[in-house]
Amino acid sequence: MEENDDNIQFKISDELIENVEQLIEAKDDTNILALLNDFHHADIAEILEETDIDHATYVIKLLDSEKTSDVLMELDEDTREKILATLSAKEIAEEIEELDTDDAADIISELPQDRQQHVISQIEDQEHAQDIKDLLRYDDRVAGGLMAKELVKVNENWRITRCVKEMRAQAEDVTRVHSIYVVDNDNKLIGRLSLKDLLIAPTRDHISDIYIPKVDYVYVDEDIEEVAKIMQKYDLEAIPVVDKNKTLLGRITIDDIVDVIREEAEKDYQLAAGITRDVEADDSIWKLTKARLPWLLIGMFGGLGAASIINGFSYAMTEFPKLLIFIPLVQATAGNVGVQSSAIVVQGLANDTVKGEIFKRLLKEFILALVNGVAIAAIVLIISHFIFQTSYLVSATICIALISVIVMAALIGTFIPIFLDKRGIDPAVATGPFITTSNDVFGILIYFLIAKFILGF
Amino acid sequence: MEENDDNIQFKISDELIENVEQLIEAKDDTNILALLNDFHHADIAEILEETDIDHATYVIKLLDSEKTSDVLMELDEDTREKILATLSAKEIAEEIEELDTDDAADIISELPQDRQQHVISQIEDQEHAQDIKDLLRYDDRVAGGLMAKELVKVNENWRITRCVKEMRAQAEDVTRVHSIYVVDNDNKLIGRLSLKDLLIAPTRDHISDIYIPKVDYVYVDEDIEEVAKIMQKYDLEAIPVVDKNKTLLGRITIDDIVDVIREEAEKDYQLAAGITRDVEADDSIWKLTKARLPWLLIGMFGGLGAASIINGFSYAMTEFPKLLIFIPLVQATAGNVGVQSSAIVVQGLANDTVKGEIFKRLLKEFILALVNGVAIAAIVLIISHFIFQTSYLVSATICIALISVIVMAALIGTFIPIFLDKRGIDPAVATGPFITTSNDVFGILIYFLIAKFILGF
Repeated sequence: MEENDDNIQFKISDELIENVEQLIEAKDDTNILALLNDFHHADIAEILEETDIDHATYVIKLLDSEKTSDVLMELDEDTREKILATLSAKEIAEEIEELDTDDAADIISELPQDRQQHVISQIEDQEHAQDIKDLLRYDDRVAGGLMAKELVKVNENWRITRCVKEMRAQAEDVTRVHSIYVVDNDNKLIGRLSLKDLLIAPTRDHISDIYIPKVDYVYVDEDIEEVAKIMQKYDLEAIPVVDKNKTLLGRITIDDIVDVIREEAEKDYQLAAGITRDVEADDSIWKLTKARLPWLLIGMFGGLGAASIINGFSYAMTEFPKLLIFIPLVQATAGNVGVQSSAIVVQGLANDTVKGEIFKRLLKEFILALVNGVAIAAIVLIISHFIFQTSYLVSATICIALISVIVMAALIGTFIPIFLDKRGIDPAVATGPFITTSNDVFGILIYFLIAKFILGF
Repeated sequence: MEENDDNIQFKISDELIENVEQLIEAKDDTNILALLNDFHHADIAEILEETDIDHATYVIKLLDSEKTSDVLMELDEDTREKILATLSAKEIAEEIEELDTDDAADIISELPQDRQQHVISQIEDQEHAQDIKDLLRYDDRVAGGLMAKELVKVNENWRITRCVKEMRAQAEDVTRVHSIYVVDNDNKLIGRLSLKDLLIAPTRDHISDIYIPKVDYVYVDEDIEEVAKIMQKYDLEAIPVVDKNKTLLGRITIDDIVDVIREEAEKDYQLAAGITRDVEADDSIWKLTKARLPWLLIGMFGGLGAASIINGFSYAMTEFPKLLIFIPLVQATAGNVGVQSSAIVVQGLANDTVKGEIFKRLLKEFILALVNGVAIAAIVLIISHFIFQTSYLVSATICIALISVIVMAALIGTFIPIFLDKRGIDPAVATGPFITTSNDVFGILIYFLIAKFILGF
């Protein structure tokens, strides 16, 4: 027992990596197997990520496919792609045989188009191959793209005895049973079965006598974010997927939903930070540049727009030079307020807590901005007057401009995400540099217009 | 069956809310019950969120506690607090009796200190009350604060027959079985049992003959984010919780982990947007102000700092007026780059993909920033020259300053989160306004220093 004592507190040490590397260099297969066989596949994947790609491929070819198929699933997409490129179609097919249909379809969909057919044709289990082909048809943004074909289902007309026998056979292929679905002769989902009821029912009963007709399900073309919401709301660990005739097609399990939730949160976070494409710190400089530069260019054009505005008012510079020193303050405040407002709305839209009319929400944001604006303007008034010795009129200009800019930024930050959402566009694109930049430019414009009005230049 | 056809595509309509409100006004208990009994508790909670608090309380008192206990769990904390304030200790205790220990402890911990003891003393099931008291000791940031006492465990010395009997009794209290844990006579976790093995083993065997000694677990004082990582990495749907002697204390299920992941992502997102405290769009203006104003004040002081810098260089304004119009560009770019860099690092730290030495990461970020910086500077060079007719020296100043500022912002954005993380501080606080503001100020300072050097003022 002692050897398992720390299996869960597992951390990869540099020595372990070095040890593995040395064994691979020495082609010491016996010791590699002895060392790695004790590890969970997720840990092996983590080790392989740290070794170079030739070594990782060597290990994948060495271990048996029951283990490596799971390891492959855990690897980063980039690493997996590189390793699969060195395997033959036959070798990939052997890995695929060991995987559940959903994972198998995910891996195959990452292969180049021409290899996909080749690999599928090498899969020995024809039913498995057909299931994978079925799954490949679905977009990975809908329920069909997330579901697995593996599930336990029983026919309403079966007796308990047959049901138990069939279930046992089906359960062989299913990692976790979760739920037993009940279908009619047309494979239409009509309910579910409680294991408890099954255990206590007389063996001569039919399933139709004991099944529970209330069953949650989603349609195969449902958006995966919607599926995630449903499974969270109803605390489901698995949900059956049906077509429009309620034919049972597959099921989605909570572990896939956990990934959806995490990826969705990461995507929103990255968009808010001005990063598109799903990048990680480890990605290449080229990939990171493609994800980051476009947003910086948006900011750049905003900055040049601001330059034009200031340039347009440059005639007033000599008379009111103090006005210029507060531009960064106006700009930063507008940006910060806009990001705050949009973040709250985007999150509210994601959680369905933003309901009701736009008008009420804008009114609330208006009051909130006014409170924050007056607070900030009051502090700035004192500091600008005593430290920067601005005249009363210039001080008044700065304060009124700050309040106006804060209110405007809050309204824009609230309105744009709601507007995009109503148009069916992901509101998360409106957060980050987009909001910051437009608020920067508008903020500076408003500042100068107010200055022009009050100071009369 | 038809009535269930749309149960999962359930959306609350305004008519439904109105209908419920009218029934409550009319105190038409029969029809309220008839209407609501068909709904899932999560849907009832959603309906009650839309009605006013007196009506919601009326419904809670009307429905039986088997249903309302689940409804209470689904409500927003604010709404729940208001409803519980109107219930007697006895009434709350009745709800608590129906809940699993983890949910029960969560609800009790929200009550005022003096009510907590009172409610617990009213719980009839003494064991349940003791379990809840045990759980209340743990901080909600550690495994103990998330675990439930309900689980299925068997003793290694039992025979299969006794095991099945005991399991059936235990399973009554457990919503989802997930795993069967095996303990020794000291209640020490020694392994787990596969249901399949149990079904096929001869009934006279002992558990010790068939159990699997490899079992994942976490310690009771483990941070919940760490628990979430472990459960995701190893695709676990439940994990047992033990004390330092490996005594089995409880278990954590994946649905609680889903909440942890979502809340963590929301918190990071809000921090990046300059919002502290867990707020929602629906919260009061006062609560929202407390969450937002502090960050705006940081931005404000940054803006005033920038004002001081510009003011300090104001003697050069008359000679090089064009310099000033590019301040917003420099500032916006510095802010955007800093946010991008810090977001990638913070996310990498959260996913454990940022490893290795700080130096290598900074070097990569340096090259990346140089690429982006040169690209942006080249465009700005052309535009500033042709559109704003800046002199060659001023153009050179702007371009060199832009590249320098982008590099600096990237390095600061990368370094600060890693530094905070190493110090044990949540790196997410370094994103958003904090990074933006410091980069704004540094950016403007660098801009003027470079200008001073090149233009010699």
